[in-house]
Amino acid sequence: MADLMAATGLQKGGIYRHFSSKEELAAEAFDYMWQAAWDARMLHVDERTSGLDKLKQLIANFVESRTLVAGGCPMLNTAIDADDGNPVLRAHAAKALRCWLTRLQAMVKEAVERGETRPGVDPKTVGALIVASLEGALMMSRLERNSDALRRVQEHLNHHIETQIAAPR
Amino acid sequence: MADLMAATGLQKGGIYRHFSSKEELAAEAFDYMWQAAWDARMLHVDERTSGLDKLKQLIANFVESRTLVAGGCPMLNTAIDADDGNPVLRAHAAKALRCWLTRLQAMVKEAVERGETRPGVDPKTVGALIVASLEGALMMSRLERNSDALRRVQEHLNHHIETQIAAPR
Repeated sequence: MADLMAATGLQKGGIYRHFSSKEELAAEAFDYMWQAAWDARMLHVDERTSGLDKLKQLIANFVESRTLVAGGCPMLNTAIDADDGNPVLRAHAAKALRCWLTRLQAMVKEAVERGETRPGVDPKTVGALIVASLEGALMMSRLERNSDALRRVQEHLNHHIETQIAAPR
Repeated sequence: MADLMAATGLQKGGIYRHFSSKEELAAEAFDYMWQAAWDARMLHVDERTSGLDKLKQLIANFVESRTLVAGGCPMLNTAIDADDGNPVLRAHAAKALRCWLTRLQAMVKEAVERGETRPGVDPKTVGALIVASLEGALMMSRLERNSDALRRVQEHLNHHIETQIAAPR
């Protein structure tokens, strides 16, 4: 709240006037931070023509933007902090996760439809793997204070996409 | 603090008498919860004779014990909450992460030395991948309130161990 007052130059009453509750204010703040993280992660993704290249660009963006998104990933923070506390905030974070997974699945489906993949590739599993390993590596990077885990996970995901998901050339 | 007073039956003063600071109390509580999580995750692991079977048992334990460890993974919670706040707690969580990675790397090395693996397997990358994807999937499972992400990650890790790490039979 103190951060918010400093950032906006408003008094507490001035901030609360715009929101029906503290819970809703936190949820709006989450949406704002998630949008910033999302923009950084989606940079240049739509310029790639192949679905699998889009996945790789997104993975690279996630690794590179680690230090750009202040305070780490809003989803990771919220999943932990809002678990028992704020149901409005929790719902916003859960919705952001669903949107992210849907977008990743769409990239894999695009690759499947263009004949770029091996038979049997499951878009839901690919999406879950990418989100889980990136978010977990981000958590590790915060504890280790370096990018080692993120780099290793990026290497694994790229290799997996090239050798297990992409159709052999 | 209220939880701790209820659990121990002690007053606040009685609890603080045993610890030099609030920070140290939180760190000791972390160690206690981490030990409980660790015991659940290591169940039957040492009964497996192959290093790769140990990895698979640990992964299965992590997925199965999701609902057993109250409040989720202590490391995940602490990595987020203690990032800027409590340096003592943060150091304990970072040490727990190092121990976990070292243990996983030892299992992979054991497999390499017994000739169970393909050439070029990197114990550090395998360890980072397993921790990152399991912890990230746990975060997703908390937001989604189901085990879907954990099951998909388990499936991926087992398939990866069988087809990319294990030597062809």
